[in-house]
Amino acid sequence: MFTLYYAAHTCSLASHIALADAGADYELRRIAFATTQQQSVDYLAINPKARVPALVTPRGVLTETPAMLAFIAQSFPDAQLAPLDDPFAFAEVQAFNSYLCSTLHVAHAHRMRGHRWAYEESSFADMQRKVPESVGACYDLIENRMLKGPWVMGERYSIADPYLFTLAQWIEDDGVDPERIPGVIAHRSRMSERANVRTAIAAELAASG
Amino acid sequence: MFTLYYAAHTCSLASHIALADAGADYELRRIAFATTQQQSVDYLAINPKARVPALVTPRGVLTETPAMLAFIAQSFPDAQLAPLDDPFAFAEVQAFNSYLCSTLHVAHAHRMRGHRWAYEESSFADMQRKVPESVGACYDLIENRMLKGPWVMGERYSIADPYLFTLAQWIEDDGVDPERIPGVIAHRSRMSERANVRTAIAAELAASG
Repeated sequence: MFTLYYAAHTCSLASHIALADAGADYELRRIAFATTQQQSVDYLAINPKARVPALVTPRGVLTETPAMLAFIAQSFPDAQLAPLDDPFAFAEVQAFNSYLCSTLHVAHAHRMRGHRWAYEESSFADMQRKVPESVGACYDLIENRMLKGPWVMGERYSIADPYLFTLAQWIEDDGVDPERIPGVIAHRSRMSERANVRTAIAAELAASG
Repeated sequence: MFTLYYAAHTCSLASHIALADAGADYELRRIAFATTQQQSVDYLAINPKARVPALVTPRGVLTETPAMLAFIAQSFPDAQLAPLDDPFAFAEVQAFNSYLCSTLHVAHAHRMRGHRWAYEESSFADMQRKVPESVGACYDLIENRMLKGPWVMGERYSIADPYLFTLAQWIEDDGVDPERIPGVIAHRSRMSERANVRTAIAAELAASG
């Protein structure tokens, strides 16, 4: 049994979908960002980073979406969520996920979380102005050089797919014109039709907190 | 045979050390940031992200340090650079590396690369002022909650070690007091005594460009 600590509308959705895809036995615990529950003593004991997601396993707690996604894929090999027996192909999946984590998600975070990296309101406003450009450049690269289609890595669905889908929820709010990235938008639509994705989103939105 | 595209004083050193630790057959190609060679047509054909590192393999090009480090560990299992047969332990290594990539390195990058996320000189100066605090908070977490010692994951050296060592080169320049993170500094010293580390650094600094 796993316990996934999550917050609605955050990157934790990627691990949530992957757990469902894996057929894992898991329960959800919602962390209420509105009341800064991620800073609570109880939650910091689980994840001192004060972020979501965190995955409680029988062995201990895991954080960091790319690591959690690889863990889920390796723990449930029958689900075939990554090319586990091919280090190069596995590295391509991991490189995609690392780019989402360290470049795309970081660019996006400058719209709402500028206080992580600066002090002044004027800097936050400046960062917000750049988000359409910085996030847009990431999506141009994904659209033109990385997304193989129909799934991220081509014909085989993998842990890269729920991660891209999750971050792609924010495209319009980040001021990126969806018409310039038709492949990404088609991927988002394709993902949204999957039963596990619909169930995961419904479960997150139905929970209180 | 692998070819590692690198630049001196960047995170590509982590993959360079790991290749040496793995006993891999590799050659180095230096990218001159001083002449923005990373933006050249030739290099963009190898890595359209215009960054280092990039690892050319017989199967294709890999980027993103966490993915490259895992690839090196999986490709040379005899070198025992990661707990490859234990998904949870492997995920702990990967979670550490993902944190370095997406949080620590990103915090550091706001000292010199503010233009990635804002437009105004005043914002860049504000970002630079926050680096000692934001990078320092990362090192506090690493020191107090993550670094097991003597190596990152405890008794066994892994691909987390060259990565932490590489980013730890920037501690003083980032304005973080090394005296508050004695475990990280001791790890850095321990790493600097390894023959592969000394050889890798010497090779990077000796190359022209």
